[in-house]
Amino acid sequence: MKNIHVLKVFLIISIGLSGWANADDGKKYTWRLAETWGANFPIFGDATKNMAKMVNEMSNGRLTIRIDSSNKHKAALGIFDFVKSGQYQMGHSASYYWKGKDFNTMFFTTVPFGMTAPEQYAWFYYGGGMELMKETYDKYGIMSFPGGNTGNQMGGWFRKEINSVEDLKGLKMRIPGFAGEVLAKLGAKPTNIPSGELYTALERNTIDALEWVGPSLDLRMGFHKIAPYYYTGWHEPATELQFMVNQKAYDTLPADLQQILTIAMKAAAYDMYAQSMHESGVNLAKLQDEYPNVKIRSFPKDVMFAIRMANADLLHDFAKKDPQTKKILNAITDYQEQIRAWTNFSDRAYLDNFDAQ
Amino acid sequence: MKNIHVLKVFLIISIGLSGWANADDGKKYTWRLAETWGANFPIFGDATKNMAKMVNEMSNGRLTIRIDSSNKHKAALGIFDFVKSGQYQMGHSASYYWKGKDFNTMFFTTVPFGMTAPEQYAWFYYGGGMELMKETYDKYGIMSFPGGNTGNQMGGWFRKEINSVEDLKGLKMRIPGFAGEVLAKLGAKPTNIPSGELYTALERNTIDALEWVGPSLDLRMGFHKIAPYYYTGWHEPATELQFMVNQKAYDTLPADLQQILTIAMKAAAYDMYAQSMHESGVNLAKLQDEYPNVKIRSFPKDVMFAIRMANADLLHDFAKKDPQTKKILNAITDYQEQIRAWTNFSDRAYLDNFDAQ
Repeated sequence: MKNIHVLKVFLIISIGLSGWANADDGKKYTWRLAETWGANFPIFGDATKNMAKMVNEMSNGRLTIRIDSSNKHKAALGIFDFVKSGQYQMGHSASYYWKGKDFNTMFFTTVPFGMTAPEQYAWFYYGGGMELMKETYDKYGIMSFPGGNTGNQMGGWFRKEINSVEDLKGLKMRIPGFAGEVLAKLGAKPTNIPSGELYTALERNTIDALEWVGPSLDLRMGFHKIAPYYYTGWHEPATELQFMVNQKAYDTLPADLQQILTIAMKAAAYDMYAQSMHESGVNLAKLQDEYPNVKIRSFPKDVMFAIRMANADLLHDFAKKDPQTKKILNAITDYQEQIRAWTNFSDRAYLDNFDAQ
Repeated sequence: MKNIHVLKVFLIISIGLSGWANADDGKKYTWRLAETWGANFPIFGDATKNMAKMVNEMSNGRLTIRIDSSNKHKAALGIFDFVKSGQYQMGHSASYYWKGKDFNTMFFTTVPFGMTAPEQYAWFYYGGGMELMKETYDKYGIMSFPGGNTGNQMGGWFRKEINSVEDLKGLKMRIPGFAGEVLAKLGAKPTNIPSGELYTALERNTIDALEWVGPSLDLRMGFHKIAPYYYTGWHEPATELQFMVNQKAYDTLPADLQQILTIAMKAAAYDMYAQSMHESGVNLAKLQDEYPNVKIRSFPKDVMFAIRMANADLLHDFAKKDPQTKKILNAITDYQEQIRAWTNFSDRAYLDNFDAQ
């Protein structure tokens, strides 16, 4: 009987302790987040502020997140290493920036001719995307989460009209990464140029074209003043930014703060997509009103087809690299095919129904 | 000097007290939520469970929300009154069900030929929609929040093909509310029939057609077995469900629990949209695989145009009813026009670019 009593006391204490471990442990946590963006960068920077504010309010100040922008930490593309090492508990950036460290990180931002934002959120949260991202990031001790969507990005600003595949040959365009490789297959000369030098490079014909984001962020760059052709998109249909959390730091938090953090990141990501939609609408209207000479075009069908085939070739090559790449690309391709059928019968058919006359 | 000391002590106590009022007040709150849906109703019911789970985990059990489905409270369309009276602190339903109580509640769910889900979230959170909804609900002591989006709803299941406006004349269709009024203008006979009797009504030709939701929820109803034509949508482009909170109950919560509740509702609403997308994709594939004879069609252009004109007439009549209705409808129309231009140049152009060949 005595042993049973000891067991009971032990159980009660254990339950009591585990209760405390889930909740207010009397500690205040102050975390630091490093972001790729400069101070006061709109929309992207709003996502981190929105997340930190939600965490602070929901935790009643038990978890405070201080944000360092790139002008502070001086390493816009050092976020992965900051979070991996634990120098910062959190980061806000974009997964495709880490393709030099791990090729497979590239596919969790967006893929040329990939999913739209609603399709991609369905994939992340209900279609296996989060699990594949976890498989990719676990080995670095980093937890990766959606961090806000820009919506469909425009194909870019061009000084001259593109009328044929021939017009892409020799075209000097600022278009980094994956999409640049696609255009290179068709003879274009992709380059990367720091954002601060883009306007001058375009003005002085150092480049013939560039892509940035879309109306939500392009207008402040002034490209519309010197490049009259604004092309619709293909290369980043749903650019999802990324929150990163150091796994060990996360593990030190009580369970309720872990949930508060996770849900604040999720809500901030979704919010950024809504904000991007809003700002795109507002700024597109402003562009069309103030600069009526800007021509918004889609590439001719044969150009678009050639680009899509070049992209398919590149994906085919990527899939041969390693089994995990193949697994991720197959998952994306299969899911996209399934959900695109729905997009076509729902929002796309609806937009056609709306315009019927 | 003494007075200054007294002031200091007073300030310290005040700050201390206000600190406590924002946070754990030592109380556990148990709330009740009444939902329109029956127990285990998928997707809609998942939204309330998801929200309650997030609240429970983030608050470490300080706020527990118990969910009563309609089989328990026996008043599927009594949610507004439950929350208004405080009999339930919360509800989950759809704003357009309350048009008999207040006509202006109707416009916060969806509008025929209205915004798509991404457009509408932008409007709610960044374009003034939340403020207009608050103006509408404040007088009832109810706080209203987005509660999850179904995505674009299908136009319905039809036993016969619709080839002309003439085919709508005398058509007996289960299509409630606003959309039913639109079709009535073109000679259709809209009716409402309880969901449990729909299949039999269609099978026995009591009705010729019906609309429900879309592939995400229609397949379990079996309509595809007896109606071979499945038409694309126009009448509910982005049906947003609704969380309601009794204002007085909300005011009794400490500030951190208020934030936890608000953000959990927001995240659960966005999540439901992603889940609806996912389930629509999965079930559409299943439908096409198992029932290849079902024909998915859009109405002919002249039929679609006639429906849109009838809708415009109806909106015009509504706007005359009272200044607040006019204000809401003008806000929706203006916002939609602005953001639709962006949708057309972004996701819509992208889907065309994707299919270029």
